[in-house]
Amino acid sequence: MLKLYVAPGTCALASHIALAETGAAYAIEKLSFKTNQQNSPEYLAINPKGRVPALVTEQGILTETPAMLAYIAQRFPQARLAPLDDIFAFAEVQSFTSYLCSTVHIAHAHKMRGYRWANEESSFADMKKKVPETMGACFALIEQKMLRAPWVMGEQYTICDPYLFTIAQWLEGDGVDINAFPKVADHFKRMSDRPAVQKALAELA
Amino acid sequence: MLKLYVAPGTCALASHIALAETGAAYAIEKLSFKTNQQNSPEYLAINPKGRVPALVTEQGILTETPAMLAYIAQRFPQARLAPLDDIFAFAEVQSFTSYLCSTVHIAHAHKMRGYRWANEESSFADMKKKVPETMGACFALIEQKMLRAPWVMGEQYTICDPYLFTIAQWLEGDGVDINAFPKVADHFKRMSDRPAVQKALAELA
Repeated sequence: MLKLYVAPGTCALASHIALAETGAAYAIEKLSFKTNQQNSPEYLAINPKGRVPALVTEQGILTETPAMLAYIAQRFPQARLAPLDDIFAFAEVQSFTSYLCSTVHIAHAHKMRGYRWANEESSFADMKKKVPETMGACFALIEQKMLRAPWVMGEQYTICDPYLFTIAQWLEGDGVDINAFPKVADHFKRMSDRPAVQKALAELA
Repeated sequence: MLKLYVAPGTCALASHIALAETGAAYAIEKLSFKTNQQNSPEYLAINPKGRVPALVTEQGILTETPAMLAYIAQRFPQARLAPLDDIFAFAEVQSFTSYLCSTVHIAHAHKMRGYRWANEESSFADMKKKVPETMGACFALIEQKMLRAPWVMGEQYTICDPYLFTIAQWLEGDGVDINAFPKVADHFKRMSDRPAVQKALAELA
């Protein structure tokens, strides 16, 4: 059985929802960031990056959300979480998850984790101040150029959707009004209604 | 025929080398960052993100290096650039490309592109100063936990290798001595000897 290491409020929710969508049995292991459990020797042996998520499989441990999402989609093809029989369409899915990972999540991370890239308090404050602008710009691009609606890739629900939902949850705290992006806001509501999303959120609580 | 938009000194080199490895015909279109060609209306119509690389295929345009690399590996399976018949091993490949994209490239980008995440000159200077430390930490993790040698995934050369080579090229400019990481340094030398790498670098010059 797959085991997923998660923490509330993190991007681990994307893989968590994707697992719930498959209908397969899985185990969740919740880490406490308050006690810095992600940097404990026990967890660093699982994921030397000291981050969540990490997915324990029978073949080994995976990290990095885009890779884990692709794995879940390929491992449970009957869940139809990615267009696996069309390499271009699959690459489009991966382009979207890669953008969320390397641009949108990174923009968000500058609010609370500026210490990753700078040392001075003044820099942290400067970074934090810019987050509404950078996250707003990312979501404007998603709204105008990426989100095909009703789901990210159009008619077919994919691994892109739980990942977008996960990051869209952060918008309010980032000082961005989701209602400025009608397609994103609609997507967010539709995601909130899905049983897999409710199951994952309940398991995190 | 595939067409790849590139610019010298960028991560587009990873996809460029991967294409060269396939032996397939491809076209290269070089953008000038000096004249800000990546933000011209013509190029923004191709990639609204205003970045390289972008890969023009018969089915549409792809962006984001990890997605493009996966596409190249899947489109040219005879080139054996990824373990396509093992979903876990393929996910491990994608975990590595995702880490390079979302952590290592981002660490590097704080040297010259701090304006993406902050507004003050003092923040840019602070970010720039930390780059040797963050890039050094990334490559220490790559050396100790990721690079199996001789190639990233061990005996099999994959799309991970041109991507690692591309980013390792930046180490000197980032103030990091590649020789502190013997496996990375050896990988870099072995990559430099490959005909596909020499072909791609010659096409960029």
